[in-house]
Amino acid sequence: MLARPLPDYLVRRYHGWKATSYAENRSWYRRLAEEGQRPRAMVISCCDSRVHVTSIFGADQGEFFIHRNIANLVPPYEPDGNQHGTSAAVEYAVTTLRVAHLIIMGHSACGGVRGCYDMCEGNAPALEDKTSFVGRWMDLLRPGYADLPEGDEATRVAALEKAAVMTSLGNLMTFPFVKSAVEAEELTLHGCWNDISTGGLEVLDAETGVFHPV
Amino acid sequence: MLARPLPDYLVRRYHGWKATSYAENRSWYRRLAEEGQRPRAMVISCCDSRVHVTSIFGADQGEFFIHRNIANLVPPYEPDGNQHGTSAAVEYAVTTLRVAHLIIMGHSACGGVRGCYDMCEGNAPALEDKTSFVGRWMDLLRPGYADLPEGDEATRVAALEKAAVMTSLGNLMTFPFVKSAVEAEELTLHGCWNDISTGGLEVLDAETGVFHPV
Amino acid sequence: MLARPLPDYLVRRYHGWKATSYAENRSWYRRLAEEGQRPRAMVISCCDSRVHVTSIFGADQGEFFIHRNIANLVPPYEPDGNQHGTSAAVEYAVTTLRVAHLIIMGHSACGGVRGCYDMCEGNAPALEDKTSFVGRWMDLLRPGYADLPEGDEATRVAALEKAAVMTSLGNLMTFPFVKSAVEAEELTLHGCWNDISTGGLEVLDAETGVFHPV
Amino acid sequence: MLARPLPDYLVRRYHGWKATSYAENRSWYRRLAEEGQRPRAMVISCCDSRVHVTSIFGADQGEFFIHRNIANLVPPYEPDGNQHGTSAAVEYAVTTLRVAHLIIMGHSACGGVRGCYDMCEGNAPALEDKTSFVGRWMDLLRPGYADLPEGDEATRVAALEKAAVMTSLGNLMTFPFVKSAVEAEELTLHGCWNDISTGGLEVLDAETGVFHPV
Repeated sequence: MLARPLPDYLVRRYHGWKATSYAENRSWYRRLAEEGQRPRAMVISCCDSRVHVTSIFGADQGEFFIHRNIANLVPPYEPDGNQHGTSAAVEYAVTTLRVAHLIIMGHSACGGVRGCYDMCEGNAPALEDKTSFVGRWMDLLRPGYADLPEGDEATRVAALEKAAVMTSLGNLMTFPFVKSAVEAEELTLHGCWNDISTGGLEVLDAETGVFHPV
Repeated sequence: MLARPLPDYLVRRYHGWKATSYAENRSWYRRLAEEGQRPRAMVISCCDSRVHVTSIFGADQGEFFIHRNIANLVPPYEPDGNQHGTSAAVEYAVTTLRVAHLIIMGHSACGGVRGCYDMCEGNAPALEDKTSFVGRWMDLLRPGYADLPEGDEATRVAALEKAAVMTSLGNLMTFPFVKSAVEAEELTLHGCWNDISTGGLEVLDAETGVFHPV
Repeated sequence: MLARPLPDYLVRRYHGWKATSYAENRSWYRRLAEEGQRPRAMVISCCDSRVHVTSIFGADQGEFFIHRNIANLVPPYEPDGNQHGTSAAVEYAVTTLRVAHLIIMGHSACGGVRGCYDMCEGNAPALEDKTSFVGRWMDLLRPGYADLPEGDEATRVAALEKAAVMTSLGNLMTFPFVKSAVEAEELTLHGCWNDISTGGLEVLDAETGVFHPV
Repeated sequence: MLARPLPDYLVRRYHGWKATSYAENRSWYRRLAEEGQRPRAMVISCCDSRVHVTSIFGADQGEFFIHRNIANLVPPYEPDGNQHGTSAAVEYAVTTLRVAHLIIMGHSACGGVRGCYDMCEGNAPALEDKTSFVGRWMDLLRPGYADLPEGDEATRVAALEKAAVMTSLGNLMTFPFVKSAVEAEELTLHGCWNDISTGGLEVLDAETGVFHPV
């Protein structure tokens, strides 16, 4: 096992945080530690460094249970005894924490979605390789490619980003504990898409399948 | 597919963010969108709502590529053609984004680690079930239980939280592309543990296997 | 005197509000500041974090003069020269602001009412202590306990929550300035009860003493 | 007991809220009702219709335990067995709910503070009357008048509004349970002042006794 000391610039910033944000909220952090978290919502967003849902939604420590993976994808329910990190996160949020909202947050310029698009267009042989973890992960989105509208590439890629959100929402309902929580009105699902460049936020209207700016 | 409008309070806060943080940083966000992200580090942390590495490290949009899963675990390299979300995130960060640092951030009061501890103690039959995603995910940490020091439960659980960080670091080195990047000195690995209550941050000294406060 | 800086997350959200809601309503806020408030109604509701009459009634800045205390109670008229915060608020609303409506808003799952119920059942010795501010405050509701219907505990506690609304309305009429404003038809009184779980709203029919859903 | 049906315009707005905000948050409201509230902060603000701390701070149901009285005043600790509504609210927030923050929010153009100023200047004989609830309530702020700076009336009145915040903070520390929670770092106190006209927010720096814009 290899590990190195933390870079200085991060240590310095940490000390700054400790002396300011932490100090102003010490009592809240203590209580969160003692009584446990009780987040109102789970958010599944991309690992992308440009997407910070806590900033966008003004959330602080304790508010959101956040899972981040490539392209904010949820796989279908598959209780085969293997490791499913995303499914574990969803299970914990819904059955243990009993979050009231589950928000899938897609975004523009998503590298994972772009990779899926390129695979489907036949332009990404490396991603097709069985050993490509990104390729196999993005296979989850392949069905979304079939339904893309005609149009220029930018339009089709943005549509595939939104299809990723819809795919995740669809797959979520294959989990028995999600389905039953939704049907019992203990959980609501939400789909969003963030335009990094313009700061725009669009929300899915499930009746029409269209994302509308808020 | 089910989806509901976003709760009002999040929409209001979003508009507030758009008019302030976004507006002040529009040119940077545009450039991030046009030129793509170039994060300096990848961070793997827990989904827990009480852990915000961007706060702790004063990071802004574009700095950290962040994967969050239950208990900040990285599984071993297993290129079997199945979906491995964590491995996909690591692959993308190391081979495509070529991050310079990969930080595993553990934390106190981790529900996933606690579940693993209870399983190993024989006190969590529900987690042992084949269909428990959390249980199967936490199997990754079972080997860490064998090495726990004697002591009271709180000590042993905290030790298991740190073992989760070390397990992830160990597993990372089983990925050929991680190993070669580390050996080429293009990537450094780091292990940390955050005490939610005290705001403390401890960093792993790999030589001794001990976590020291920064 | 001790005071600490405001937590960051509230400062950020405030800046968001300033740049959006405030900015869109600047002229109205200026006028409210220059000409003074002229609220149409006073609302007396509980401090409970789950009860927001401005949300429920779509009210904006300037509409409601709002007093919030434990269990939305109004004490009887007692001009003894001591401090009576609730009576002061009622006096200001009725004699200076001359509001047209005075609404008492009760709610389900009220911790204060629950405390009173437990005292009356002999199960809350700590609240009986002379130094318990909550206990002494809830003494105001003790007479309501005598009239509770037979039934299970949930039914009786909900009945006591509604008795709190009726007690307040009864006590309001002991204030000479309230009585004369009501008799002059310059003021009307209203009693409501909000079910937090279902979002229900019931309004008191004074003729029958029954609360009906609107 | 007198009570009238709710005005139509409020009933209509309520139905609108029920069909929108409530519907989007039903699962959260249910959970709040079942598990109880766990607000992070208590806010004490004025009844004034122009001050909405939930708007200013982007807070939603469940976040703030809110007491509102004339001029956001907290009286000194006085466990004499009489009714003290403000003290009851503070006691419940600190000892039962164990809030992490207690925020006193003052504001400009405060009618209660103005009344106190006029009394102290000898210009408000009606408020001096023993039977004036507003007058007796505002007696709590009389000591603040002695320390006002020289200057024009507007300056002095604004200073008295800020003195109300400081008086409340000082009085809070006379409550044994507040003092011990602050000393145990389980509670932090904060003082603010909101300028209604400009939407400004100033926060008290307790070291200097000066309010600074955030």
